[in-house]
Amino acid sequence: MGNCMGIRDVCDRPKNTNVRCRLPAVCFVWQLSMIILFGVFVRYNEESDTHWVDYRKGNNITSDIENDFYFRYPSFQDVHVMIFVGFGFLMTFLKRYSFGAMGFNFLIAAFGIQWALLMQGWFHSLDYTDGKIKIGVENLINADFCVAGCLIAYGAVLGKVSPVQLLVMTLFGITLFAVEEYIILNVLHAKDAGGSMVIHTFGAYYGLSISWVLYRPSLDKSNHLNGSVYHSDVFAMIGTLFLWMFWPSFNSAIADHGDGQHRAAINTYLALASTVLTTVAISSLFEKTGKLDMVHIQNSTLAGGVAVGTAAEFMLSPYGSLIVGFFCGIISTMGYNHFSTVTFYAICPFLEEKLKIQDTCGVHNLHAMPGVIGGIVGAISAAAATNTVYGDLGLENTFDFTGPFAKRVPTIQGGFQAAGLCVALCFGIGGGIFVGLVLKLPIWGDPADENCFDDEIYWEVPEDEESVPPFVAYNNHMIPNKHADM
Amino acid sequence: MGNCMGIRDVCDRPKNTNVRCRLPAVCFVWQLSMIILFGVFVRYNEESDTHWVDYRKGNNITSDIENDFYFRYPSFQDVHVMIFVGFGFLMTFLKRYSFGAMGFNFLIAAFGIQWALLMQGWFHSLDYTDGKIKIGVENLINADFCVAGCLIAYGAVLGKVSPVQLLVMTLFGITLFAVEEYIILNVLHAKDAGGSMVIHTFGAYYGLSISWVLYRPSLDKSNHLNGSVYHSDVFAMIGTLFLWMFWPSFNSAIADHGDGQHRAAINTYLALASTVLTTVAISSLFEKTGKLDMVHIQNSTLAGGVAVGTAAEFMLSPYGSLIVGFFCGIISTMGYNHFSTVTFYAICPFLEEKLKIQDTCGVHNLHAMPGVIGGIVGAISAAAATNTVYGDLGLENTFDFTGPFAKRVPTIQGGFQAAGLCVALCFGIGGGIFVGLVLKLPIWGDPADENCFDDEIYWEVPEDEESVPPFVAYNNHMIPNKHADM
Amino acid sequence: MGNCMGIRDVCDRPKNTNVRCRLPAVCFVWQLSMIILFGVFVRYNEESDTHWVDYRKGNNITSDIENDFYFRYPSFQDVHVMIFVGFGFLMTFLKRYSFGAMGFNFLIAAFGIQWALLMQGWFHSLDYTDGKIKIGVENLINADFCVAGCLIAYGAVLGKVSPVQLLVMTLFGITLFAVEEYIILNVLHAKDAGGSMVIHTFGAYYGLSISWVLYRPSLDKSNHLNGSVYHSDVFAMIGTLFLWMFWPSFNSAIADHGDGQHRAAINTYLALASTVLTTVAISSLFEKTGKLDMVHIQNSTLAGGVAVGTAAEFMLSPYGSLIVGFFCGIISTMGYNHFSTVTFYAICPFLEEKLKIQDTCGVHNLHAMPGVIGGIVGAISAAAATNTVYGDLGLENTFDFTGPFAKRVPTIQGGFQAAGLCVALCFGIGGGIFVGLVLKLPIWGDPADENCFDDEIYWEVPEDEESVPPFVAYNNHMIPNKHADM
Repeated sequence: MGNCMGIRDVCDRPKNTNVRCRLPAVCFVWQLSMIILFGVFVRYNEESDTHWVDYRKGNNITSDIENDFYFRYPSFQDVHVMIFVGFGFLMTFLKRYSFGAMGFNFLIAAFGIQWALLMQGWFHSLDYTDGKIKIGVENLINADFCVAGCLIAYGAVLGKVSPVQLLVMTLFGITLFAVEEYIILNVLHAKDAGGSMVIHTFGAYYGLSISWVLYRPSLDKSNHLNGSVYHSDVFAMIGTLFLWMFWPSFNSAIADHGDGQHRAAINTYLALASTVLTTVAISSLFEKTGKLDMVHIQNSTLAGGVAVGTAAEFMLSPYGSLIVGFFCGIISTMGYNHFSTVTFYAICPFLEEKLKIQDTCGVHNLHAMPGVIGGIVGAISAAAATNTVYGDLGLENTFDFTGPFAKRVPTIQGGFQAAGLCVALCFGIGGGIFVGLVLKLPIWGDPADENCFDDEIYWEVPEDEESVPPFVAYNNHMIPNKHADM
Repeated sequence: MGNCMGIRDVCDRPKNTNVRCRLPAVCFVWQLSMIILFGVFVRYNEESDTHWVDYRKGNNITSDIENDFYFRYPSFQDVHVMIFVGFGFLMTFLKRYSFGAMGFNFLIAAFGIQWALLMQGWFHSLDYTDGKIKIGVENLINADFCVAGCLIAYGAVLGKVSPVQLLVMTLFGITLFAVEEYIILNVLHAKDAGGSMVIHTFGAYYGLSISWVLYRPSLDKSNHLNGSVYHSDVFAMIGTLFLWMFWPSFNSAIADHGDGQHRAAINTYLALASTVLTTVAISSLFEKTGKLDMVHIQNSTLAGGVAVGTAAEFMLSPYGSLIVGFFCGIISTMGYNHFSTVTFYAICPFLEEKLKIQDTCGVHNLHAMPGVIGGIVGAISAAAATNTVYGDLGLENTFDFTGPFAKRVPTIQGGFQAAGLCVALCFGIGGGIFVGLVLKLPIWGDPADENCFDDEIYWEVPEDEESVPPFVAYNNHMIPNKHADM
Repeated sequence: MGNCMGIRDVCDRPKNTNVRCRLPAVCFVWQLSMIILFGVFVRYNEESDTHWVDYRKGNNITSDIENDFYFRYPSFQDVHVMIFVGFGFLMTFLKRYSFGAMGFNFLIAAFGIQWALLMQGWFHSLDYTDGKIKIGVENLINADFCVAGCLIAYGAVLGKVSPVQLLVMTLFGITLFAVEEYIILNVLHAKDAGGSMVIHTFGAYYGLSISWVLYRPSLDKSNHLNGSVYHSDVFAMIGTLFLWMFWPSFNSAIADHGDGQHRAAINTYLALASTVLTTVAISSLFEKTGKLDMVHIQNSTLAGGVAVGTAAEFMLSPYGSLIVGFFCGIISTMGYNHFSTVTFYAICPFLEEKLKIQDTCGVHNLHAMPGVIGGIVGAISAAAATNTVYGDLGLENTFDFTGPFAKRVPTIQGGFQAAGLCVALCFGIGGGIFVGLVLKLPIWGDPADENCFDDEIYWEVPEDEESVPPFVAYNNHMIPNKHADM
């Protein structure tokens, strides 16, 4: 590979992708900062502290099983799988970017959850008596959620940025997320258990805006790598299925104890099932011979889970969930079809040609549109809530019409939900443009156009072909090499 | 590929596999029907409804943690993984049918769970006061169980049917399942926590009967695709392991709260461990040089979980579970060895030659025989139950000897268990023959014999070879292409 | 392949790897012994027995949800996934040893959990009233833990031993583990919730010592197979990620109910996040162009989970966990870098050249060093425990200063923790040398040096190349075969 690499290095000269100083520096400095900030600010909350045993007695809690850990830990682990295996593997579909997909996803999620614990902690879990952030299992879930927004954004720029850029994008993304979330959930008092607005709408527009700023006119130079091979599509389905299966846990993880979590899981289960059928229908309908396209199955089948996020804990009713899933499967799949007619399938030509947005994983179709739909469905179903359907106590509990919001009524709530959607959009687009400009600085080691979607730039890739050629010369014939071609 | 495809199309002319009208039509119409039927019939039950908060107070339930959600949701998620990743990946072993294995598994499961919620709801969860089906987490688990029967049947016809046929097969399969289940569990009052009879025996014979009716005398035309490659065998092990690991959750998911779930998990854990050792032993014993066969490891290691299904919640005792697993590993592996001597390994020559049944995944060895054994073990262990072993209250609880069945004794229960097994067999075989005849109609777009086991028929397959040839010409030599050979 | 195999057989003649008699015999005899021993000794405990319903009433337990099953089953399933998918897939990184990695991992774990239930049962769960071992979900978790030690040891000898040797290694390994665990946890009364000492230190040194005794001077004959290919690295990441994600469950699975489990999960979550960043930093720093190495990402990212094992349930505090993870990421990655400079990347040249230890998976860097660090961190944090931080009741609960240990104080506890680490080291090294000598006997069917890391020895491997050549002759040209190259 010596020569070959030599030639390659010459071609790459305009772009220096050597991150040997920058990447370790950023990782070390940021991790040290995390340690210092955690040292100053973060402590266990009363349910994860050894004083729980006293607290229990003092508060007449009859059993350890009422520790919040047992309400939320199973869902937390499912969410954790979605973040690391779900998002990580969903992006392995590119033929030569699986290391980057899984590996950088892993890196930015691991940094993001720490920063999110701090940022969200300052806004939501600060104990004013001692100025400390008190954390428990719910904080871990929220940190994972916060990271999900940044991973969605990663999908839009997959293969076109350096790991340093991704870390910067995550730092700003988490920060923006925490502020946006505070405004939506606390100031506006909107509800968003599954994060249609807070996570998906924000994350998708954040990523698309960055992608717009970082537009690469000559990206077609790496067209030969911008597609899948058979086995990379199978790997990507691991991501799809773990996202799909655990989405009920995602939407119910921080819902109210009892009926709230229960209902959120049911609604999500149903919406996702419905989405699969309409995704298959549209995928088959738009192809000349009725064949199915793996891109749709990998992505659009998830749209129902996104769209039912906000309303998952409401009394959406089972058929309501099916309806939401039904339309999202159609819209999302048509998004892939309409926007990405032929050539390199994951980048949307419409978005690319008209709007100059290159969206590698199609997050516009999977997160942006369904997220907005989810916000709207949430607003409508909140506005339509009645005491008859919810019960007096149920209405108060579900929408937390207590304290300063005791006088709020469902129709008003619907308005605040809609306002929340606008906030998510503004933060996503505005924040994305700002961060995109930061990432345009020529200091981050991003790849040249012809090196996009190629693991060789940032990874030691095993030299399959040289050490194990699929054919070897034998008596002047090429015969199969028995150790080649896994 | 142009020419090549042209020739191909000519060859295929006798069979039209274009499903562009049929597949979308079926998906749309059925999904719309689901929405309408859910709108008319399905509501949340008292534990997933906002009235839970009132119900709790009215029924002296001290804590939200006693909501059935917390008893069953972790097991539900494990079962969900088994259905979508377990069954889906187990079938990816074929070298060129991984898309179909995962994708159609996904499609029919997503449809099936909706139809199952309705069918099972009408039989088991109908609230006679308002004519509505009231659903909660237990219904979701049962819907997943119901779908498992159809996915087992899919294993028998893998690669030989169109997605439209699979959907039809699922529609009828779920319907038959619900009736059969009602007769076995409610009319006969047999117990079957892990579904050895209700799920595995029914599902396997349903699939085998369909395969018998759809017998293809010239299936050897697609012999070259009826086998695995190295990496497809690794993918299949993902399915095997997730099924194996989560089987304790499968058998305990709807068992009684408390000791019932606890015991079912222990019994299944032990039976499966035992099966692995005898599977390895027989696999090695029957091969000239003692090598192991991946087909056995992928499939027979699961037989113990099937066979301990019915008796999992009984006092089978730990060594009883080990014994069940011990024999099932032997029988299942010998099934694969005896029935599938050499050539194309997954289709059983014995079944094929004598009985004209082509069983792609060997469901006869994995589900049918162990399922019947499970039914028998269940009948014997029920008949042998005594007050000494179970305790008076324990016996009553375990077998639900209450209400109309208050006078039933263990020996009688054993007889009813055996009757349940017969019902499962009859429904499986009879239903399978009927549905097989329906699927024989020449309107479903099934593949020609030479196109079986080939994803190209129903999927857009990435063109690995043309875009990324493993070798490229260089100075009149063929040299390895560095981007080839994933 | 006929000829080829013929030549091969000749080459292999010095080593007979035919395990056709030995492997089935060991599996059958051992499994039958398990059945007999379980028949004599093992019964359900009070929470998994039908008498639970009476026990509940007798002990004023208000709800079935207080059955230990609901405290521990979700964590148990996560641990189960770590054992079978986590360890199994982590070792699939070799290009041609994925079957052996997953398959033998599966086999020895399935045997090991049974033997562990007995061995640990005799030490910890023996009911002296009737001489029976009473098992429940906590025993299943402990059996999985016990097996983890042996799977770690497998990592050190991966590819170089026969399945019979692995079973022998597991038999002795479990036995040694149970004794060592009894001494550390019961006699010394050290705490080790996540098993830094009991599992990781013991397991790693056990495997390294065996590898030292079985040193192969000519192992470089199989250098061509001692490395990864692109897709095998992706498979290995499945193992890495499932280990990483579920490690909080591993460390919290048998911690105290309530705050103990809660805190252990938080500490592990944080330590692991921190490790990822320093692993990436060091990996990039030591490579000329700043590229990342998959070996580090696959392994060193897990070191934080190992190192926080002992102290996970202590009041380590969130920043303490981050610090532990920070240093372990550095040390572990430097271990891979320093010890394995270039050629065949997973075997450590330093260990190999100086110490004559061939450590295929680098368990020294992933388990041995972090395990020892974990033991030290545990000792220090135990010695530093104060009533102020823990609360009086909390201190007593966390360290079980009750019964014969009622008078123990934290500083003394720290000393006993350190003693526990020494016990783990001694058992690992001493036991490993003994078992290594046993495994050196020429009766186990181990492979010749040139056949190491090759699945062909013990597995029927699908003949990819012959049935589906990547190129076919066409008009005197080699053209791509459309079914080749998955």
